[in-house]
Amino acid sequence: MEKTEQLSRRNMLMKAGLAIGGAVSAGVLAGCTDKVVEEKIVEVPAEPVDPGPQPSQFPYAQHIAASYQLDVAAVKEAAYQNFFAGGCCHGAYSALLGHLASTVGQPFTLLPMDFGKFGGGGVAGYGSICGSALGATLLINMVVADPAPDQPKRNPMITELLRWYENFAFPAYLPVAVNAGEAGATLDYSAANLVNIQKVPGSHLCHASLSSFCAKNGVAANGKDKAARCARVTADVAGKAAELINDYLANRPLVATGRDTASTACVQCHTAATTSAPAVASGMACVTCHTDKATNHP
Amino acid sequence: MEKTEQLSRRNMLMKAGLAIGGAVSAGVLAGCTDKVVEEKIVEVPAEPVDPGPQPSQFPYAQHIAASYQLDVAAVKEAAYQNFFAGGCCHGAYSALLGHLASTVGQPFTLLPMDFGKFGGGGVAGYGSICGSALGATLLINMVVADPAPDQPKRNPMITELLRWYENFAFPAYLPVAVNAGEAGATLDYSAANLVNIQKVPGSHLCHASLSSFCAKNGVAANGKDKAARCARVTADVAGKAAELINDYLANRPLVATGRDTASTACVQCHTAATTSAPAVASGMACVTCHTDKATNHP
Repeated sequence: MEKTEQLSRRNMLMKAGLAIGGAVSAGVLAGCTDKVVEEKIVEVPAEPVDPGPQPSQFPYAQHIAASYQLDVAAVKEAAYQNFFAGGCCHGAYSALLGHLASTVGQPFTLLPMDFGKFGGGGVAGYGSICGSALGATLLINMVVADPAPDQPKRNPMITELLRWYENFAFPAYLPVAVNAGEAGATLDYSAANLVNIQKVPGSHLCHASLSSFCAKNGVAANGKDKAARCARVTADVAGKAAELINDYLANRPLVATGRDTASTACVQCHTAATTSAPAVASGMACVTCHTDKATNHP
Repeated sequence: MEKTEQLSRRNMLMKAGLAIGGAVSAGVLAGCTDKVVEEKIVEVPAEPVDPGPQPSQFPYAQHIAASYQLDVAAVKEAAYQNFFAGGCCHGAYSALLGHLASTVGQPFTLLPMDFGKFGGGGVAGYGSICGSALGATLLINMVVADPAPDQPKRNPMITELLRWYENFAFPAYLPVAVNAGEAGATLDYSAANLVNIQKVPGSHLCHASLSSFCAKNGVAANGKDKAARCARVTADVAGKAAELINDYLANRPLVATGRDTASTACVQCHTAATTSAPAVASGMACVTCHTDKATNHP
């Protein structure tokens, strides 16, 4: 038997995932004599290849090390930059997913990075839930496991993200590198001037959030100032979601933003259970839209 | 050499993914004589196992046969039933995903069926975008590929779903089997009486959609009538999304619902580009929320 054939057979045996006692294999490989050499082949099952965490193994906190924390600053900058490659929902979604993919690995690496592009402008430009809030919500939903049915974690985190959004003076983020996509913006987004252009939206809806900012600052809702503002909002929101996820992973308690005073009064009569006044099931601020109910009501 | 050892070695060879000429292997397996039998082991690489379509290969229209159509009736009933297992977003999401998983296969089988549970009650109960509309939107987004940058398909389909929702008299679905989860509902959801309780929401938001239905019918927003109504809404919306996806897959043109007359007038002044009136970027009906602008404006 030539050496090449020996090697071929050895390769074959190795590929079979079998372990063979050294002396026996030597006997086999050395060639046979007039008697069949004693051989005992002990079959050891090949180690099944572990495919790693899969997208179906949901939610994904189970695949994240207990000590893991997202780098909030990195997420924010990525969200700002990615806004210019697919809008607000894509910015938040891809920044958070991309960060988890590069720092945690599977199953985040197995998911499509472009999934969030539909959500820009409040879901396909419809002015609904702010796309960055939706993209961030999708990532919170991916990660967070409720520890028990009576101990919900996921929905309170999402509610907190949306209520924080309503009450936050956008935009606040200062990009590490200003993206060329906002060239031509007319407002001053410097640290010194941000306070003069910021607007608390009072709503998590794209339409109200963007329109109120534009109205305050006298800018259009589809130009470079819109881009500059919404890219920074995307960074702010993705960063907030990263902080919420970090708190969750580290078992730090959720500190919930309280409901605003006016809305708290509204839902004293307009409960979800009432039939005497129109029943309301909502976590949103009320008078942002129901402006006519802010005074002389009921 | 005993038979068990022969089988053991044959198994080993088979597991190695190697093809060996029948005569040669017979010689090997028959045991050696005083001379090494001629043997030529020809290594044939194992066929790589095709893992099939993966979640990262997005969007998923590429994995669906050209002639494929969803069974709209099956999707509706599944959405209605699944509502009771996780809410409106889960109902629509899991009905559409489950139907695609069972009729198309991968990558839909590789995705978590419970992903939509966060969206109930307008995203974690916040009253935002109707969860069934969001769940259906996520599935449209999964499937639809824009043929070219200047030929968008996905976003117009999502916009159409939301605008159809605004204008549809909910609920319309008649369950094949009424779910026990709505036992105790007080309204009459029979085919003969539906017209008396239906309400056109004028909004795609859970809060406005649900509250206006409850106000019309004098029922609570958190009881069995809410469940009965929203389960049927979930079926209606999932069915509409299935129809839209079917049209897309069959290359039938999208027939878009026109914007309502009042909103069409609003956005003549409140364009996205204006700076003379508050700029508005929104596809929503305007006066559903801006009731004070319906008359004597500007």
